Amino acid sequence: MQLYFSPLSCAMATRVALYEAEIPATFHRVDLRTGRLDDGSEFRAVNPMGQVPTLRTDEGELLTENIAVLQYVGERRPEAGLVPAESRQRTLLQQWLGFITSELHKVVFYPQIHPLAPEGARAFAREMAGPRFAYVDRHLAGRDCLLDRFTVADCYLVTVLGWTRGLGIDLAPWPNLNAYLPRQHRRPALARAYREELAMYEQDRRAEG
Amino acid sequence: MQLYFSPLSCAMATRVALYEAEIPATFHRVDLRTGRLDDGSEFRAVNPMGQVPTLRTDEGELLTENIAVLQYVGERRPEAGLVPAESRQRTLLQQWLGFITSELHKVVFYPQIHPLAPEGARAFAREMAGPRFAYVDRHLAGRDCLLDRFTVADCYLVTVLGWTRGLGIDLAPWPNLNAYLPRQHRRPALARAYREELAMYEQDRRAEG
Repeated sequence: MQLYFSPLSCAMATRVALYEAEIPATFHRVDLRTGRLDDGSEFRAVNPMGQVPTLRTDEGELLTENIAVLQYVGERRPEAGLVPAESRQRTLLQQWLGFITSELHKVVFYPQIHPLAPEGARAFAREMAGPRFAYVDRHLAGRDCLLDRFTVADCYLVTVLGWTRGLGIDLAPWPNLNAYLPRQHRRPALARAYREELAMYEQDRRAEG
Repeated sequence: MQLYFSPLSCAMATRVALYEAEIPATFHRVDLRTGRLDDGSEFRAVNPMGQVPTLRTDEGELLTENIAVLQYVGERRPEAGLVPAESRQRTLLQQWLGFITSELHKVVFYPQIHPLAPEGARAFAREMAGPRFAYVDRHLAGRDCLLDRFTVADCYLVTVLGWTRGLGIDLAPWPNLNAYLPRQHRRPALARAYREELAMYEQDRRAEG
């Protein structure tokens, strides 16, 4: 399959899932500021919303939205356990994917990382962060992962929490959440995905001068 | 099962799904401003995030997040077709649930309906609306529903679009989207859910004086 991504964006969650499940894929970098792919073509010709992740399946179909792309990828290699087969665990997975995509990604982080968001939107997002971080923190007490084992919900949570560094958000007031990120980074596949995207991200920043 | 809801909130999507699938349920009204149930007890004792929908299953487990609650309800009565069984359609369902919960509910509507959101957050949300409405509008050209038939994604879309009236948002620039809401309201189960919640909502407003 083929993944359209931008380094360290939310699409990193899908790269993590692909590496964790050892699924071969081709990666196409999208410059979200110019809206162009590396070959100069317009990404909106692929996905009119211009958003990543966008996945092209081996059957040629396009798939968007983190929660759909992540479950699709996880289901391709059930033995990797990234998407539990058992129905109660699957429902809990969807609950956490829902929380991360709505409450964390779009309420807490999106206005803080969007270049055009005015200060009022950023301030509101910062105010919304505390109760949401506290909620995840309480859930993670005594747990390694969001569910009983590492799933695509962790791929997504690791990705959005990775943005706290650049935003200067200190997770120390939420000790379980604070310990979660370095613990997950001990996973070789996840660490490799982050290392590769960080290198691309830093290269892009240097190219901008 | 038991649904904790607030009239005309996003939890209405679950009531629509329950009525459409003819699943019996008990409904508990939450006053989101006081955080209390009708019996005076604290809702946060049930769900620490204080959010609706919160569903208590017949097995006594608590479930939150629209996308998880809606799929759980739809799966209880597969013959109603609210959650397609076929895997490609299921993936498309998750894509639309993901878009509605993140891009529409949390990016476009949440800052506009949250009583504490500052003007900057509201302005940013209004600015984000156009491209997102246009995206759904293009998809709905020649379609009755988001997928090939009415699903829980429509239950959710009808619910968030219902907020446009109170916000003074005119959907006329997006004709397919504009026609979608009145068309869905011709469904008896959906119309009943809306009528009941509207009556409760108006009663609450009158009680406030």
